[in-house]
Amino acid sequence: MTPPRPPSRTSFNDDLGLGIGTESGRGVNKDGTFNVRRLGMPRFRSYEGYHRLITMGGLHFLGLVLLGFLITNAFFAAIYWSIGMDHFIRTGGDTRWDRMLDAFFFSAQTLTTVGYGHISPRSHMVSAVAALESLLGLLSFAMATGLLYGRFSRPHAQLCFSQQALVAPYQGVTGFMFRFVNRRSNQLIEVEATVVLSLLGEDLLTRRFVTLPLERSKISLFPTSWTVVHPIDEASPLAGMQDAELRKARAEFIVLIKAFDDTFAQTIYQRTSYIAEEVRWGARFKAMTIAGPDGRMVMDLNLVDAAEAVEG
Amino acid sequence: MTPPRPPSRTSFNDDLGLGIGTESGRGVNKDGTFNVRRLGMPRFRSYEGYHRLITMGGLHFLGLVLLGFLITNAFFAAIYWSIGMDHFIRTGGDTRWDRMLDAFFFSAQTLTTVGYGHISPRSHMVSAVAALESLLGLLSFAMATGLLYGRFSRPHAQLCFSQQALVAPYQGVTGFMFRFVNRRSNQLIEVEATVVLSLLGEDLLTRRFVTLPLERSKISLFPTSWTVVHPIDEASPLAGMQDAELRKARAEFIVLIKAFDDTFAQTIYQRTSYIAEEVRWGARFKAMTIAGPDGRMVMDLNLVDAAEAVEG
Amino acid sequence: MTPPRPPSRTSFNDDLGLGIGTESGRGVNKDGTFNVRRLGMPRFRSYEGYHRLITMGGLHFLGLVLLGFLITNAFFAAIYWSIGMDHFIRTGGDTRWDRMLDAFFFSAQTLTTVGYGHISPRSHMVSAVAALESLLGLLSFAMATGLLYGRFSRPHAQLCFSQQALVAPYQGVTGFMFRFVNRRSNQLIEVEATVVLSLLGEDLLTRRFVTLPLERSKISLFPTSWTVVHPIDEASPLAGMQDAELRKARAEFIVLIKAFDDTFAQTIYQRTSYIAEEVRWGARFKAMTIAGPDGRMVMDLNLVDAAEAVEG
Amino acid sequence: MTPPRPPSRTSFNDDLGLGIGTESGRGVNKDGTFNVRRLGMPRFRSYEGYHRLITMGGLHFLGLVLLGFLITNAFFAAIYWSIGMDHFIRTGGDTRWDRMLDAFFFSAQTLTTVGYGHISPRSHMVSAVAALESLLGLLSFAMATGLLYGRFSRPHAQLCFSQQALVAPYQGVTGFMFRFVNRRSNQLIEVEATVVLSLLGEDLLTRRFVTLPLERSKISLFPTSWTVVHPIDEASPLAGMQDAELRKARAEFIVLIKAFDDTFAQTIYQRTSYIAEEVRWGARFKAMTIAGPDGRMVMDLNLVDAAEAVEG
Repeated sequence: MTPPRPPSRTSFNDDLGLGIGTESGRGVNKDGTFNVRRLGMPRFRSYEGYHRLITMGGLHFLGLVLLGFLITNAFFAAIYWSIGMDHFIRTGGDTRWDRMLDAFFFSAQTLTTVGYGHISPRSHMVSAVAALESLLGLLSFAMATGLLYGRFSRPHAQLCFSQQALVAPYQGVTGFMFRFVNRRSNQLIEVEATVVLSLLGEDLLTRRFVTLPLERSKISLFPTSWTVVHPIDEASPLAGMQDAELRKARAEFIVLIKAFDDTFAQTIYQRTSYIAEEVRWGARFKAMTIAGPDGRMVMDLNLVDAAEAVEG
Repeated sequence: MTPPRPPSRTSFNDDLGLGIGTESGRGVNKDGTFNVRRLGMPRFRSYEGYHRLITMGGLHFLGLVLLGFLITNAFFAAIYWSIGMDHFIRTGGDTRWDRMLDAFFFSAQTLTTVGYGHISPRSHMVSAVAALESLLGLLSFAMATGLLYGRFSRPHAQLCFSQQALVAPYQGVTGFMFRFVNRRSNQLIEVEATVVLSLLGEDLLTRRFVTLPLERSKISLFPTSWTVVHPIDEASPLAGMQDAELRKARAEFIVLIKAFDDTFAQTIYQRTSYIAEEVRWGARFKAMTIAGPDGRMVMDLNLVDAAEAVEG
Repeated sequence: MTPPRPPSRTSFNDDLGLGIGTESGRGVNKDGTFNVRRLGMPRFRSYEGYHRLITMGGLHFLGLVLLGFLITNAFFAAIYWSIGMDHFIRTGGDTRWDRMLDAFFFSAQTLTTVGYGHISPRSHMVSAVAALESLLGLLSFAMATGLLYGRFSRPHAQLCFSQQALVAPYQGVTGFMFRFVNRRSNQLIEVEATVVLSLLGEDLLTRRFVTLPLERSKISLFPTSWTVVHPIDEASPLAGMQDAELRKARAEFIVLIKAFDDTFAQTIYQRTSYIAEEVRWGARFKAMTIAGPDGRMVMDLNLVDAAEAVEG
Repeated sequence: MTPPRPPSRTSFNDDLGLGIGTESGRGVNKDGTFNVRRLGMPRFRSYEGYHRLITMGGLHFLGLVLLGFLITNAFFAAIYWSIGMDHFIRTGGDTRWDRMLDAFFFSAQTLTTVGYGHISPRSHMVSAVAALESLLGLLSFAMATGLLYGRFSRPHAQLCFSQQALVAPYQGVTGFMFRFVNRRSNQLIEVEATVVLSLLGEDLLTRRFVTLPLERSKISLFPTSWTVVHPIDEASPLAGMQDAELRKARAEFIVLIKAFDDTFAQTIYQRTSYIAEEVRWGARFKAMTIAGPDGRMVMDLNLVDAAEAVEG
């Protein structure tokens, strides 16, 4: 006779916020982004621009800065050119090409406030435009300062998860488990794990979501690695399921890790997921740590995936 | 026989902090600000100034920067003028107008530290004032940097709520519900909802406040939309009320959403409210998501208000 | 027969962290600082310097910046002078005074990177020192930027507490109460109050600390004012005490307010305390809000102290 | 007959996240770092660079800035040199050495945007390189601003722990205790302590971890010092152990302190540990505070280690 399973039942649909109801692939990608496309996003807002400038790749960002510098210079050079290059004190050549480049480089020397002075305004109109350009230069640079700080100080969890989740005997029962390490030098504290199982219903149309109870859902200190374990007892939604059932139900284990970054005093989150095809049955993790020759512990981060088969 | 309703009773007046006791309109405006005017605020404090500079509109801010730049330049130009323009090495014209503008542009070139040098101090007094001006320029620019960073990095929740709240059958009982989506690209995590119902008492003079129990008050992940539901069971303060009763009691549903912005590692809040006139009876929300051709989910943010009538 | 009062007993000494055991005056000053002098603090550490620069008054800070600017300029001017002013290209006079001031102003123009060029290096040694000085100038300015941002963005709760706490009849029992308003434009959310009563023991030597249960210890929204109430029921440590007993026991009510600043996404705390002499018996607060002519609520912050006598 | 000790048992292995399974020395060093060496860390990532630049010593950081300045200048000087020094307007000497240094100092004056102008570009190619260099200078300086702000604003708890932990009679039972003070001027609020005991198992191969119940695990205010006490009652894992047993089991008490820094609105953590050799039996702490002549309390931070023997 089966017990009524009240804890698992109450947790059904308990913690989703994930309206993923299609029969299609994974809801959360390996890198933690959601597998959702959004239509109707606002076209442009200043904070969206900030968001993009903060999160884009470094080379992309540098390229944009350079492009902005060139375009702004060209814009002001065109203004100086239209005022006329005879409004400048110049020492260089006087071909059309010389004058154009002098307009451009005077603009660059003004925007960066380097202001050598070998090209300098002769007329007040040029002085007025140059005053505005140098103010714009200072403000742009102020924004660049903020953007660079925002880029570097943004929290970057870089937890490295095992490629596969394992199902193996664990302390009397069977356990579903995966592990992760911190690949950064920052110290993580009070690390919390939440694992939500998403299963296609028997109608193959709707998905249900269950928060899996974990052997331990929070650790105070995180010096090495953490193997998160869901014990598959009789109350578990995985009870009695095998690899084939998981695949048929297009199971997805959605993982949410929360931690406090001690170095930067920031709370950080990282997500990932394991689909049925990424679960290995009958294997357990091998130790990542050995005692070094000096008695100090040594952990090899490359061993995060190391596992070995066990007899079930 | 009616049960004694202890949960609803204890929550009466439990979570207000909202001393709104008048019979007048809404206590919380649609944009989340409080409908309260405050007298006796301190006239000016530096942090109030900071607060205003951080929260004002972008064009307004830019205008203030430009104005400050012009005024500061004019102020120092007046000092240079009173010292006398013969204290300068200049190459330009010598009309009164020329000299005035040279004073102004020397000031601008000093404040921005561009310092071309075609106008430069001849006397020590001018050098001294210019040294102070360039220091002031650097400090002003330092402040501008901080202000711009403060403006952009400030948390900007932009949840988009449905214009109307709906009352419709929901899983056996009737539910009061509204929904919202995130219009920004940032990832929101651990989203919490609190809904407080404010009702005019039978004396039509005092208001009471009840925190409504929600079907689910927190979700871990927020990839698409969230429909917040208050089930109108017999313990609900809405039990037995209809549209007319709600309007008579000048009901207001005050909504407080809390979330963690994963991109910027900040906790953000957003408020809104629904008054009785904004509640639609006998309608339910239509789905915002469809499965795209590639099996990926597609959510159309413009559908947040999409609802359809249901037979009660 | 008196009940054994277990809740009050368990809370005795429960939440102090306040080793204030002397019979002397208040432990927490009105502005929330602790009335403790600390010996043996470390002499100087960079973060202590940062702390002081961030928390000192604005004029004090400005004065320090100006002083630092003058001293650094004088220092480099002395180096240039010792190298010799014939190592410079100069257009000015040649008295000893002229040369000294030229050294000083060249230093200023280098430190601020304004670099007009009417005084410029003739020898490589001067160029080398000037390169270092301009680098130092940029770094100093970078620090000034950080300090100014740190100064402005630091959380500044400015809760205004009523000068007196009141004891008056309250909903059937007697209540100890005080109230506060937010004098800033920022929005405070999820405001929490903790009140700890400190009493001199009967031996007049040791102090005991009791956390007072509050009618409500947290409010979600804080649009106007909050009157914090401790109901003096028979379990209260204040049960049966009168003004004279409070004074004899040198009672001190230590208040800790925690809130979330919605504008800056920061958690802020503010402390204050009421000693026995600041408790008024038999008075209650008058309303601070009235309905304005447009139906909008109006709150007068100056009324935070408004109270009226009640018959006990 | 011994009771079954359920609370202590459930807490075994409850709060570790500390896979320290070797028989070797301490798992947590006195300064709170973990005694673990990590292999396989990623070679270089920009945020790792940021992390190192933020956490390295001040002189080290300054040295790196200076080195970067010199190398960048030398790099651009080499470019200018390869273009040819006849592409410059120069007033200085014309030996090879003169020209080399002029290239270097022109580079320095461009990178810092000081731009005196006594050396300035004659050809457009030099102008182009100089424009790029001044842009690079501005960006580098923007990064320096961010780094300096990041360095100073990073949370720096500086709790000073007693060198030894003590075991002594305490309120009827025996207590394990240590104490700490705040050596900084910042205000700490809501201080929480967690103490985990790590013991080598009887097999001398595996370690077990127990979270010790504390007399008080959180204090609201922290004006002076806090003595953290674990009462050694019969449920304690220390029950019946003496100094020799602790040493044999290579006991380590891992301490984690969490607090809110009121000055900077940041949550901070600090860790330390006591090994068996750092536990003194039969001693208690002496008071650190005295009442000053003005009735104000005086705390001497140097007394944090002051203890005296007691008869057990």
